[in-house]
Amino acid sequence: MNSLALSTDLYELTMAAGYYTAGLTATRATFELYVRALPAHRSYLVAAGLEQALDCLEHLRFSRDDIDHLRTLPALERVRRDFFDEYLPQFRFTGEVWAVDEGTPVFPPEPLLRVTAPLPEAQLVETVLLAQVGFQTSVASRAARVVEAAAGRAVVEFGARRAHGIEAGVLAARASVLAGCESTSNVEAGRRFGIPVSGTMAHSWVTAFPSELAAFRQYMDVFGDRTVILLDTYDTLAAAREIAAAGLTPGAVRLDSGDVAALSRSVRVILDGAGLRDTKIFVSGDLDEWRIAAMVEAGAPVDGFGVGAALSTASDAPSLGAIYKLVEIDRGGAAAPVMKRSPGKETCPGRKQVWRILDAGTAREDVIDLADSPPGLARTDQFPATRSLLRRVMRDGTRECASPSLTELRARHRAAIAELPSSVRRLHDPGRYPVRLGSALQAAIARASASGR
Amino acid sequence: MNSLALSTDLYELTMAAGYYTAGLTATRATFELYVRALPAHRSYLVAAGLEQALDCLEHLRFSRDDIDHLRTLPALERVRRDFFDEYLPQFRFTGEVWAVDEGTPVFPPEPLLRVTAPLPEAQLVETVLLAQVGFQTSVASRAARVVEAAAGRAVVEFGARRAHGIEAGVLAARASVLAGCESTSNVEAGRRFGIPVSGTMAHSWVTAFPSELAAFRQYMDVFGDRTVILLDTYDTLAAAREIAAAGLTPGAVRLDSGDVAALSRSVRVILDGAGLRDTKIFVSGDLDEWRIAAMVEAGAPVDGFGVGAALSTASDAPSLGAIYKLVEIDRGGAAAPVMKRSPGKETCPGRKQVWRILDAGTAREDVIDLADSPPGLARTDQFPATRSLLRRVMRDGTRECASPSLTELRARHRAAIAELPSSVRRLHDPGRYPVRLGSALQAAIARASASGR
Repeated sequence: MNSLALSTDLYELTMAAGYYTAGLTATRATFELYVRALPAHRSYLVAAGLEQALDCLEHLRFSRDDIDHLRTLPALERVRRDFFDEYLPQFRFTGEVWAVDEGTPVFPPEPLLRVTAPLPEAQLVETVLLAQVGFQTSVASRAARVVEAAAGRAVVEFGARRAHGIEAGVLAARASVLAGCESTSNVEAGRRFGIPVSGTMAHSWVTAFPSELAAFRQYMDVFGDRTVILLDTYDTLAAAREIAAAGLTPGAVRLDSGDVAALSRSVRVILDGAGLRDTKIFVSGDLDEWRIAAMVEAGAPVDGFGVGAALSTASDAPSLGAIYKLVEIDRGGAAAPVMKRSPGKETCPGRKQVWRILDAGTAREDVIDLADSPPGLARTDQFPATRSLLRRVMRDGTRECASPSLTELRARHRAAIAELPSSVRRLHDPGRYPVRLGSALQAAIARASASGR
Repeated sequence: MNSLALSTDLYELTMAAGYYTAGLTATRATFELYVRALPAHRSYLVAAGLEQALDCLEHLRFSRDDIDHLRTLPALERVRRDFFDEYLPQFRFTGEVWAVDEGTPVFPPEPLLRVTAPLPEAQLVETVLLAQVGFQTSVASRAARVVEAAAGRAVVEFGARRAHGIEAGVLAARASVLAGCESTSNVEAGRRFGIPVSGTMAHSWVTAFPSELAAFRQYMDVFGDRTVILLDTYDTLAAAREIAAAGLTPGAVRLDSGDVAALSRSVRVILDGAGLRDTKIFVSGDLDEWRIAAMVEAGAPVDGFGVGAALSTASDAPSLGAIYKLVEIDRGGAAAPVMKRSPGKETCPGRKQVWRILDAGTAREDVIDLADSPPGLARTDQFPATRSLLRRVMRDGTRECASPSLTELRARHRAAIAELPSSVRRLHDPGRYPVRLGSALQAAIARASASGR
């Protein structure tokens, strides 16, 4: 039903038509996708969404219906007919993409993605790349904080109902698990990405039966030890006592309202008193990293957390303001760096790479420099270890290698996040991670500024 | 690729299996979808997303692949095989839906949607209904404020790149236009919903050419009077003078950075001085209702606003916390009201209707009462005009009437919003709109509370 090629801003199409008309169809250009600044409450971002972005690049085609629709748009009525008859029907993305691995912590203004392609192709993919990478990076960046706050306790992504539509829920589950959540409630995400799924019961289950105990018994009849019993429909402590008195042995109980830290203690006492030491306590209800951290700090006996909107909408920073900017273009056979100088929104010219400098396994600083500046290898001599973050993931419009599994990405994320200084990871008053522009890049900025371009 | 039936929380499926096992497959139940409280910065909500919600209900089926996947889930391993072999293959939604028209201003805790269906069906659709209605209602509610702030100037939805994925961008465009935006940049939304699309040029267009003037000329060559020229790539006022000196006659110019209110005045002077009185000034760049209101208040000569993340992510309230609660269930052949009493999260029992009381065309208050309480008609005698907001839109799983066009919904929205007291609509320190629980509902709450259920 949805056309990928048309799911874009009109100006991408008008500009593509314009480049075509101007004879720039074959001119190679390089764009970089990055975030200008960290949002409030973030000390790092977690790159995500690359897989879906590359999928879009591989599948981008204009169907006959798409093209027929474009012919009807007043905005395109002056465009040469061969754009519709010749250019769009054969269109495919043929470019090269460099990207930071999903799961990697990144810091503005580091490029997360770099596209080199014929100008109209590189332009046309802007909107879709920003939407795919921006969204999942928002969610993964939040999820990493929530997981950090849980300090080893399980975090389950529960946000499908709060997500921005159905597909957003599936992708939010992916990004959340990538950044450390243990599982998701989203069955489709489980299927598509091989993520463990988990679930409990809703209040409607409890209210659907004539008595709470009847509801609990019925669920246990069907699901046995896997049952997670929801305690707060009427009175949390009374429900816990009811379970104990009835001799039910659920796998876990869930608390969803009230002072859950205090309730968790009382429920633990009741359960333990009935010999239900293996019954876990699971908490949900408008949770975020701050509430979780407070519960953990207070030593509440909580085994896991279900988190919804905080993850699936990245509610405190639902948009990162990611941008996609032209940094280099071929002019007369040579690559010319380009720079935008809008006040407060300047761009950095030239094709860039990011080097992460590590010292005894801890990231010390990142250096953004021109990709072809003295090679990263030379730098390793000066420092204990240097790693370049952007690697080529697509060439001639084709992926360089098979897609990593989410399990693999999750493991990479865990390793990469463990390299960050703990001061940068902490929730309260985090340290600022140093990001430096390399000397070659600084020189390029100076040249571009001086040239008035 | 995406399975609608599996794009849900696992517990909807476990509960459905549980109801099936408990012999409640045919038990009729009523759920209501509503929002508990207004988020900060909202004095009303605008209902939206009903069309997509009904689409989901009509198309919800479990494919053989879906069912085969469900059989593999550990969480469902104890479920009776006939649930997979008999119930799921024939599943379709056969219920009745009552809903508030899209575009209608609503106030918590008014139901936006009421579903009456066999219990497992009504339960299974929870997640998807919440996601569809919650998301678009978030966006439409923000859009109404942005449009209010623009005070008659055009607002164009520009948020595809910031949306939570591609489909979210399309639906955000729909909700924005429904709530008063003039057009969208999203081409697919334009096609699917018959929305006008509009676009300008990006900074990349300007930087792709050896000179700014060459870039402007080239675009004007292709697009003529429709051209919207972007002024701020290097220096906004210099670009305006460049246009004037070169004798270009663009349809509009766009300002995207700097002090746009001040710049708009200077640009207007430059354009007018060159006889370009018909060239409009269009402003974009991290706009929201507050910035727009400030520009309008300052009398900035701006003809239109392009708004991105504020609309497409409803950035200041990206989730409304919409909920879907069982309010009534058949027990022994009679409809029994049900009520959840979790502290701070109590529900109201019984099937409800909302009546809007109007006085000389202005909404005076809303009354939420039991749907079968003394008929709305009797009320009209006491008041100048009474309108019930929920109407039946689906029966036996089939839509009652053809889907209204977005143009139609937009007109309805405009009329309905005009009925709100201006104090409730204003951005700063808005008045609180009165919502009252009717006497029959109050009595039902008292009965349910007293019964301990």
